[in-house]
Amino acid sequence: MNIEDQNGTTVLRRTNEEEPPRTLWTILIGRPLATADAPHHTIGKLIGLAVFASDALSSTAYATQEMLAILIVVGAAAYGLIFPLSLVIVALLVIVTLSYEQTIHAYPNGGGSYIVSRDNLGQLPSKIAAAAILTDYVLTVAVSISSGVAQVVSAYPTLYEYRVWIAIGLVFTIMMINLRGLRESGIIFAIPTYFFVVMMFITLITGLVRALTGGLGLVVDPPLHELATEGQAVTLFLLLRAFSNGTTALTGVEAISDGIPSFREPRTRNAGITLIWMSSILGSLLLGISFLAGHIQAVPSEIETVISQLGRTVFDGRGTLYLMLITATTIILIMAANTSFADFPRLSAITAADGLLPRQLNYRGSRLVFSRGIVVLAVLASTLVFIFQASVTRLIPLYAIGVFISFTLSQAGMARRWWKIGHLKPSEELKERGSTLHYQPGWQTKMAINGMGAVLTFFVMMIFAITKFHDGAYVVIFIIPLLVVIFSVIQRHYIDVAAKLSLERYGSPPPRIQRNRVLLPIGGVHRGTLAALRYARTLSDDITAVHISINPEESERIRQKWEQWGDGVRLVIVESSYRRFMEPLLDYIEEIYQKRQPNEVITIVVPQFVSSKRWTNILHTNTAQALRSELLTYKYIVVTNVPYILD
Amino acid sequence: MNIEDQNGTTVLRRTNEEEPPRTLWTILIGRPLATADAPHHTIGKLIGLAVFASDALSSTAYATQEMLAILIVVGAAAYGLIFPLSLVIVALLVIVTLSYEQTIHAYPNGGGSYIVSRDNLGQLPSKIAAAAILTDYVLTVAVSISSGVAQVVSAYPTLYEYRVWIAIGLVFTIMMINLRGLRESGIIFAIPTYFFVVMMFITLITGLVRALTGGLGLVVDPPLHELATEGQAVTLFLLLRAFSNGTTALTGVEAISDGIPSFREPRTRNAGITLIWMSSILGSLLLGISFLAGHIQAVPSEIETVISQLGRTVFDGRGTLYLMLITATTIILIMAANTSFADFPRLSAITAADGLLPRQLNYRGSRLVFSRGIVVLAVLASTLVFIFQASVTRLIPLYAIGVFISFTLSQAGMARRWWKIGHLKPSEELKERGSTLHYQPGWQTKMAINGMGAVLTFFVMMIFAITKFHDGAYVVIFIIPLLVVIFSVIQRHYIDVAAKLSLERYGSPPPRIQRNRVLLPIGGVHRGTLAALRYARTLSDDITAVHISINPEESERIRQKWEQWGDGVRLVIVESSYRRFMEPLLDYIEEIYQKRQPNEVITIVVPQFVSSKRWTNILHTNTAQALRSELLTYKYIVVTNVPYILD
Repeated sequence: MNIEDQNGTTVLRRTNEEEPPRTLWTILIGRPLATADAPHHTIGKLIGLAVFASDALSSTAYATQEMLAILIVVGAAAYGLIFPLSLVIVALLVIVTLSYEQTIHAYPNGGGSYIVSRDNLGQLPSKIAAAAILTDYVLTVAVSISSGVAQVVSAYPTLYEYRVWIAIGLVFTIMMINLRGLRESGIIFAIPTYFFVVMMFITLITGLVRALTGGLGLVVDPPLHELATEGQAVTLFLLLRAFSNGTTALTGVEAISDGIPSFREPRTRNAGITLIWMSSILGSLLLGISFLAGHIQAVPSEIETVISQLGRTVFDGRGTLYLMLITATTIILIMAANTSFADFPRLSAITAADGLLPRQLNYRGSRLVFSRGIVVLAVLASTLVFIFQASVTRLIPLYAIGVFISFTLSQAGMARRWWKIGHLKPSEELKERGSTLHYQPGWQTKMAINGMGAVLTFFVMMIFAITKFHDGAYVVIFIIPLLVVIFSVIQRHYIDVAAKLSLERYGSPPPRIQRNRVLLPIGGVHRGTLAALRYARTLSDDITAVHISINPEESERIRQKWEQWGDGVRLVIVESSYRRFMEPLLDYIEEIYQKRQPNEVITIVVPQFVSSKRWTNILHTNTAQALRSELLTYKYIVVTNVPYILD
Repeated sequence: MNIEDQNGTTVLRRTNEEEPPRTLWTILIGRPLATADAPHHTIGKLIGLAVFASDALSSTAYATQEMLAILIVVGAAAYGLIFPLSLVIVALLVIVTLSYEQTIHAYPNGGGSYIVSRDNLGQLPSKIAAAAILTDYVLTVAVSISSGVAQVVSAYPTLYEYRVWIAIGLVFTIMMINLRGLRESGIIFAIPTYFFVVMMFITLITGLVRALTGGLGLVVDPPLHELATEGQAVTLFLLLRAFSNGTTALTGVEAISDGIPSFREPRTRNAGITLIWMSSILGSLLLGISFLAGHIQAVPSEIETVISQLGRTVFDGRGTLYLMLITATTIILIMAANTSFADFPRLSAITAADGLLPRQLNYRGSRLVFSRGIVVLAVLASTLVFIFQASVTRLIPLYAIGVFISFTLSQAGMARRWWKIGHLKPSEELKERGSTLHYQPGWQTKMAINGMGAVLTFFVMMIFAITKFHDGAYVVIFIIPLLVVIFSVIQRHYIDVAAKLSLERYGSPPPRIQRNRVLLPIGGVHRGTLAALRYARTLSDDITAVHISINPEESERIRQKWEQWGDGVRLVIVESSYRRFMEPLLDYIEEIYQKRQPNEVITIVVPQFVSSKRWTNILHTNTAQALRSELLTYKYIVVTNVPYILD
């Protein structure tokens, strides 16, 4: 330990400080760097893709199916619409990707929606972004797990009636794993992600080859009957509803922009390239699945997923390749849910640092706090799964709104940033929170790209909200403002407290406290009492032991023992007529408090038994804790417990 | 307040002590009497019957039905067996009543099984009794509520599929009412109890008159098909199983012996007469219901209860009288469940006072503790209701074992007591816990009655355990020993602690503490910090402020502010390389602790913000609490928080 004296203040520079353990969390958000430390342990593009792509890629497992679920009402004509609609969604994906590519370069330390909108758009938009994303994480868990279970049920239809409990069981399993702390490296992520990508491409290429050679049939036994019937007419509203469902394919695209610090240098370049890889894979999978789903005339169903129908048509039944495809899809969906368990506490921490959520959420190393976040997430997601009976189709209307609100705010924030950059003089500098802006040529194009991203995602969000309002979107439209209000109330409290604690107009400090009067409540006279008495002796010479008498014989015994062991300290016995303990003690303290001199403080010293067997703590009353909570609002009373170690 | 000085000790006799509020609990177990206080507010026999009879009388709602549920496998022959079997059960009831009548006179302050077996049989039997009764309270709630819901479902069959949720909803409603605290007087109990008794007698007398005049038909549309078929042969095993189910009618008979102190003087006489009234009503109802159920050939069913079948046969359909009968039955079943919510915390308190359960359960006036007991009971009962799908038939095999174990132990204890009394010399006195025994003539008869009660209830318990083992009784046979082990472990801990704390071999006390070193962790310099500093000043002259530096600029600001406001107190800045707070602080404290002198204590003073808005507490880290739990096992460290009131 280095010690340095600086104007009378000692500064300790700890040379042996232990590096915090590497957890999933440190991998995803970047290790907490010691200031003097060079970045290492970062990840390359291949691993980066695996770590950050599960959320985005897994959404191809349900996006096509959910489009079909809407389109199917028009009958067989649906199969002609699904591919063109997917092309539109891929076009949207291209815009969003370009937008985020620019965000990555602008925010090398991580540019999530919340940060970008906070730094560029201000308070309210950033609160909306935070609310939208937190909601979204809960839905990611619910949707991904429900879809994962649907894959399993497709392969093993007898499990259908247990789907809700399997899903909830999975959520809690992931919760337990996260509570224990994941210590895997990126490689653990790489295997299932690439397994999924490879299995998907095998399926799609096999399918395409067979389709082009005319060897690919239809889904043989349609589980639903709509196929045969003539459908409704194709309306714009219907197309927009189907389109809304398809946009869920874009969820998760923003993940890389949050995780830039984990990439190897040049990290913005690596992260940007990884984003483009990811989007290319995502787009290809979506187009391939949609094309083949149309070709085989897949039927959206709660019993069997489109992926399963595709697999068993392409591979002619439920063989090994089929099972590998289903396994890969299930695992990547579970991993997508798992990433929310890292993201949710992280965003909570960032917003907490800004005073929108309880500050404790921002303390690293405090396991308890993250544990709570993880448990809250699991409970909320399980509740959703239960309410919506693990049906992806019923959950989807709640899902993408939050994502597109955050896309919109993030891109609008970026556009605003380019506008500021464009209006700087070439030599000028604009200091922003965390970064410094300089004039950049070509800002107009960049602003146009982000602006177009913002406008397009805004329209998608509106389409989603309108076409899905009755299906459940109203829930989210209610929850997000509610969260914004909660953020504002919490923020106001912190600002208020800071003002009240401020020393600005404090004047001169009040005079020193003249007297510390010590009360020592005793239930018996034993070693713990004497330890508390010894401690009390160091605080003051004015000590009063107080005993609440419930049983006169017992009190007489205590009085005698105190005469022997009490070291001459005054004992007061308070008789409790109704055999209560707390009320008479509080009444007595209240009386002493009323008779208090100004500049006098009352310290209540209570012994507390401590045993190495933690479970035994529930066998002892924490009198100090109870007194403290009762006397919290008394300005001059301090309650102290003196631990007495039993073993 | 009276003050009295007694050998240098002050004794405060509080004359203005507020009487504790009257709650359901104080009604049921007797108000906590002030020593100088004469008993008033006690209840007479009519109200006493109403208050204590709901549990016992309500069991007639299912006892006959559950006997039939077993007997029905023999076909129509069942209807010839039900009445004779009920006569046997009433004979058992007579014995149990006589036994308890003697207990009431022997234990004027309340003679529950636990107390009687503790005072007369010793440790292990009393633990078994406590375990059995606690288990029984949970089952009383589950069975009574399930049966209550079954009555409702009988009247409104469309509710059948919601029965589990209705039952769980009811349990939680009763829980909420008990958490808020019931403040009704006995009269509130009187109305529904007498309503039930009156409705039952109207039904039974009407039914008997119509049966004798030949005007009472059969249950018209049998909901089950067994009726038509030829049944199995009547075996002894079958009769014993049916008998076991019927003995559930006796549950609740012991209630009065627990509640003697609430009765008006001469309380033992009043309580004894009330017990005999109650048993007479119970026996009459059971016989009447069984006779008529056999006569109308009622069919045990999950869809419609026997009471409902009886009601609609006697009253020719679901008219007003029918609905009044069902309402009365439902309400008394709910009230029976409700009494467990008062009994469970009470028995917990008594066993806790003896050190078998955490002692806190014995502190009166501590609402929190009873609240926990009430919530635990509701959760356990709901779990049972859920697992057994609110089916009385499926719950019954778990139910009566606990009751009969406690009957057996209670009566055996009483027999033992008479034996001791009989073997005293006429002039001799035997001091027992809480009472003094004198020789009584005629002890032999009394011992014989209690002894017969013990033997009979023991046989019933064995019959129950054997015939119902597979149906679920094994669960209870597993849980009761488990609870006994838990009681023993807790008891051993308390005995162990008492030995460790004892001053018997303490020798001379250790020397006084010479030095109190104060550490003042500061996150910023504000009014709260200064309040903590002012308090720290009263503890010691050796104070060190400690700041954990996460951000160097911030730390520099704090250093400057401390120079201005820190009153010359030394400041140590500990640099935290990884932006953690707790770990560096703990490391620093650990170093100070290691360099500690003997006879030196370290006090860590932490400011704590207190706001009148309680919810805001979750917005502030309770650093003191966190430090305290981390440093609990350090013998010479005391953590103190100094409240700073914000408003």
